[in-house]
Amino acid sequence: MEHQAIEDQLHGSSTWMKRFERYLPELVYGSIDGIVTTFAVVAGSAGAELSISVVLILGLANLIADGLSMSIGSYLSKKSEQDNYKKHLKIEAWEIENLPDAERKEIEDIFREKGFDGKELEMVVNRITSNKKVWLDTMMKDELGLTLESKSPFKAGLSTLVSFVIAGAIPLIVYILSYSGNTSLDPFILSSVVTALAFVLIGYIKTYVTQAGLIRSIAETLLLGAAAAAAAYFLGDYLRGIIT
Amino acid sequence: MEHQAIEDQLHGSSTWMKRFERYLPELVYGSIDGIVTTFAVVAGSAGAELSISVVLILGLANLIADGLSMSIGSYLSKKSEQDNYKKHLKIEAWEIENLPDAERKEIEDIFREKGFDGKELEMVVNRITSNKKVWLDTMMKDELGLTLESKSPFKAGLSTLVSFVIAGAIPLIVYILSYSGNTSLDPFILSSVVTALAFVLIGYIKTYVTQAGLIRSIAETLLLGAAAAAAAYFLGDYLRGIIT
Repeated sequence: MEHQAIEDQLHGSSTWMKRFERYLPELVYGSIDGIVTTFAVVAGSAGAELSISVVLILGLANLIADGLSMSIGSYLSKKSEQDNYKKHLKIEAWEIENLPDAERKEIEDIFREKGFDGKELEMVVNRITSNKKVWLDTMMKDELGLTLESKSPFKAGLSTLVSFVIAGAIPLIVYILSYSGNTSLDPFILSSVVTALAFVLIGYIKTYVTQAGLIRSIAETLLLGAAAAAAAYFLGDYLRGIIT
Repeated sequence: MEHQAIEDQLHGSSTWMKRFERYLPELVYGSIDGIVTTFAVVAGSAGAELSISVVLILGLANLIADGLSMSIGSYLSKKSEQDNYKKHLKIEAWEIENLPDAERKEIEDIFREKGFDGKELEMVVNRITSNKKVWLDTMMKDELGLTLESKSPFKAGLSTLVSFVIAGAIPLIVYILSYSGNTSLDPFILSSVVTALAFVLIGYIKTYVTQAGLIRSIAETLLLGAAAAAAAYFLGDYLRGIIT
């Protein structure tokens, strides 16, 4: 904890910001999933010329149902990752207590691989195995390739839910206004414009997660949304012709 | 490659199986996302008493659109992870060439943290920094905590697409049969039963990914699907009352 505070001081970023940034991937990917899924309902309905009430009913139902399932799924997968890490940590700790010779041999193999030999190898192995915490840590990282992400499964799930529902509501807002009679413009065209702007914004925020270039990130996100919406629109249009 | 073959021999698993297993997380999570999203359309439509043709049009449109977006998203996120790894690898390699003293100091810090000191510390640092590959590898793993997943972004995306579309089609099959007049039973009840069975099967396969217990994995997956469907059903039912 104290070390974290010093790190924050050095990086000029508050603890609050750090905490927020930790869940940025969930926020970004949750937003993309949410906005794509409701815009697919909007575009499919527009292609099939379904009524505004169908768009609203299925758009909202899909938003809540998918939002719940994505966030519960995000919680469960983070939870199982952590459970899996803890399970292997327990096994390795048990092995160090009960089969120290075999585990010592594994440390020897790891450092032989790194180019150590003879007296040097013996010394490194002695030093590593003299501290059980370091020993265990080396087994987890170098033997099993496992590291523990310090993310709360609950907060990861909550971040997914909130971003999914907020971003997913964007394509529907125009339809809600249109349904209330507050606009006379074509709701599909208006919704497409608003949704495209939201995709640009999400693509921009995504650069903080992927560290990709700005133009590339925006183009990728926008194209992804457009491809999904076009597929839904043309499929809706095609099915309208064959399904009465 | 040869080492991999020996590993496969020891673990009694063919190279083909190994390759397949590598994409099992994508296959499992793609299946869950696909089946949840189409079953949400089915349940929401049932709650709102919409026609079978609406279920088919929006179910299929959603299946293709969401399937595309999830798989492109999976491809892009794997790709950006690898790009990010390569970027940091390049930076570290450049630093080792051009700022060897600073990078040597970092290796020193890493091993001091592990309990090395004095002559021992000097020896370990000398050994690690004598081989640039080991030096670079240590920086990536111990300083940055980065490891490279040997997954092809393209295959990860393709696995997501195939599993999403196949599993997502399950709740709709009954509606297609029902639409063709091949069954007289209530399509929503039939679809719920078939979908529940599919959730049990996916929960079972999921144990290979999460290594959780069988009962827990099946119960979790089934409850997730049921929660999402119930939310969609009751929201559809509620909105039918207020949206004419």
